[in-house]
Amino acid sequence: MLDLIKGLAIENESKIVLLVADGLGGLPMEPGGPTELEAAATPNLDALVADNVCGLSLPVAPGITPGSGPGHLGLFGYDPLRYSIGRGVLEALGIDFDLGPDDVAARGNFCTVGPDGVITDRRAGRISTDVCRRLVEKLRTIRLDGVELFPEPVRDYRFVLVLRGEGLGAEVEDTDPERTGVPPLEPVARDAASERTAALLRRFIEQAAALLADEHPANMITLRGIARRPPMPTFEEMYRLRAGAIAVYPMYRGLARLVGMSILPAGSSWAEQVERLRENWRDYDFFFLHYKYTDAAGEDGDFARKVRCIEEFDTGIAGVIELRPDVVMVTGDHSTPASWRSHSWHPVPVLLAARTCRPDAATRFGEDQCLRGGLGQIEAKYLMPLALAHAGRLGKYGA
Amino acid sequence: MLDLIKGLAIENESKIVLLVADGLGGLPMEPGGPTELEAAATPNLDALVADNVCGLSLPVAPGITPGSGPGHLGLFGYDPLRYSIGRGVLEALGIDFDLGPDDVAARGNFCTVGPDGVITDRRAGRISTDVCRRLVEKLRTIRLDGVELFPEPVRDYRFVLVLRGEGLGAEVEDTDPERTGVPPLEPVARDAASERTAALLRRFIEQAAALLADEHPANMITLRGIARRPPMPTFEEMYRLRAGAIAVYPMYRGLARLVGMSILPAGSSWAEQVERLRENWRDYDFFFLHYKYTDAAGEDGDFARKVRCIEEFDTGIAGVIELRPDVVMVTGDHSTPASWRSHSWHPVPVLLAARTCRPDAATRFGEDQCLRGGLGQIEAKYLMPLALAHAGRLGKYGA
Repeated sequence: MLDLIKGLAIENESKIVLLVADGLGGLPMEPGGPTELEAAATPNLDALVADNVCGLSLPVAPGITPGSGPGHLGLFGYDPLRYSIGRGVLEALGIDFDLGPDDVAARGNFCTVGPDGVITDRRAGRISTDVCRRLVEKLRTIRLDGVELFPEPVRDYRFVLVLRGEGLGAEVEDTDPERTGVPPLEPVARDAASERTAALLRRFIEQAAALLADEHPANMITLRGIARRPPMPTFEEMYRLRAGAIAVYPMYRGLARLVGMSILPAGSSWAEQVERLRENWRDYDFFFLHYKYTDAAGEDGDFARKVRCIEEFDTGIAGVIELRPDVVMVTGDHSTPASWRSHSWHPVPVLLAARTCRPDAATRFGEDQCLRGGLGQIEAKYLMPLALAHAGRLGKYGA
Repeated sequence: MLDLIKGLAIENESKIVLLVADGLGGLPMEPGGPTELEAAATPNLDALVADNVCGLSLPVAPGITPGSGPGHLGLFGYDPLRYSIGRGVLEALGIDFDLGPDDVAARGNFCTVGPDGVITDRRAGRISTDVCRRLVEKLRTIRLDGVELFPEPVRDYRFVLVLRGEGLGAEVEDTDPERTGVPPLEPVARDAASERTAALLRRFIEQAAALLADEHPANMITLRGIARRPPMPTFEEMYRLRAGAIAVYPMYRGLARLVGMSILPAGSSWAEQVERLRENWRDYDFFFLHYKYTDAAGEDGDFARKVRCIEEFDTGIAGVIELRPDVVMVTGDHSTPASWRSHSWHPVPVLLAARTCRPDAATRFGEDQCLRGGLGQIEAKYLMPLALAHAGRLGKYGA
């Protein structure tokens, strides 16, 4: 599909906006009740649905609950089963680390080991982020030949380690045994190309152990999710789109960077994000705006707050429409029903607005009406081709 | 997809029940009329649909009419285009033969040959099952070095031959030429690994011809559908489910055995099957109940009887619901419209009931309402992942 799209993509003056309300899809709290989206007052979204087309997006496949990585890759048009993003890479993206194509990233934990080297606490008593920062400064003194090292604090007991150098394979087993009562595992290469990486990590861990020996409770580290970013064609290469991302949270900026989007300033609120969109309007063909708070409210199990977040999200839509984009898509990367308190597999409401829409009977943006919308139930990876088509940016296939 | 599911499956205490009414889907007998399912009074199924979600299941792909094998493999979550079950294997399953992973099974016909060795009747005048049994006893006296032989009667002129031994390839051509006026074909190996199997079958056929020489009309045999069971991951390996099958007919027990289900006693009626479910409730995570009579009525072209069968099927649902399963799925392995008198390609009504369903507008279980149900039109192979998700048995994909 990607090859097909790449061969058909053409340039023009059109503007496409993808608005993602994280974890948008929901469930009723009681039988017969509305979902979060159905309970919310969303006059701007409803007006878009009434004149255009809606449906339900399947992030990966029926029954599959996606993390943020696969959820967004699907929306960006990349098959999330083909392109997988390792834990270490996602963690690095989450702190805005500008990961190079050859960098190897690992998620690190500070942990506690006893005098016999056996892990007694995998999270080192959940040390504070301040302590984490101080300990990472110690790790920064480690030097290894032929490779640059970037230990970076994340939060609490978590850090990221990035190795930058030539010819570093990333097929290395976790050192976190995921249980206590055993020592950390050795970093073991799964292929010949990763032997050097494993050897470097062994030396890093030895030196880290020496530097942390007098610390308590964080006197050791474990590494897991050792990975490189997957080699992916960019938006420019694949779609011929100059794309800009406006996201408050680093992880979503990171995901956008993976597919070659420019990272635009976002401010710290939805209203500011929409304002940044206006300011950058002339300079890009495609904009990805990420709204985080719907997901956070769902994860907290707070139905009412998720409703309010959706309403705030809706108020921003008016500002987007004023810019007269050629194509607007609104959806989520997955569902996060407040009743389920986490990501779920349920299909996600999606709307597509363009002058070339064949309208359907839906008049409100909600799960129930989207079920009967003209987009049907559609795999997320097909939304980008649809948006390009509606923007006049896809040529004919075959003669 | 199977690898994905295998990697995500987690264990918990939930119970999943899959109820299959064979050949459930139907067609109206006259324009504007109801289908069998729409004509039936199904208060229990209707109540489940009203509170939950329904849709239409595509057993294999649009336009493809499945046999019982692919129909059930799809429902069990295995791509029926990837895992194919040879005729010999299905025939062996149909007589409850406990086929080992290396056994080679062939479907056999008794036939009639003239003095010149040419087939004059491919079915030996459709001899009775009693005669079949007597002739199979003769075949049981055949001994071949290095292999165990199991000739087993099936019905009328049909029997099964199973070869058990080491290193037996199953790539051997049919000996049934599928027409009269020619002699039976030689068993020919399609690959080197099957040369020995072909040689063994040639000797078996020679000895069978000698033993049957004085019989009339069944003085010869042909073999076809020579096959081994496909290597398949079990329910336990793939889904971490302890699964039990409650099926009156041997073929469905056999299909369940192929995917590693335990075969539970079924009795001889639907009411007994539901009672056996109750008795075994504590010991399994997943139950497959197979109801045969809907398909038989459809094959007979008996619309009214199929309606009555569906109503009997519905009465059993109450007993299932009393057990408070976490997830109930009800569907068929394919459609068998009475007006068509055989299996068909039409999508099959499916309902899924769980606390985590996003309800749809459907209030009755029937083809028309299922067309607008929240599951949409869904390939059968995705139903198991969905059921697992609703049971909280699938972890998140990617971070």
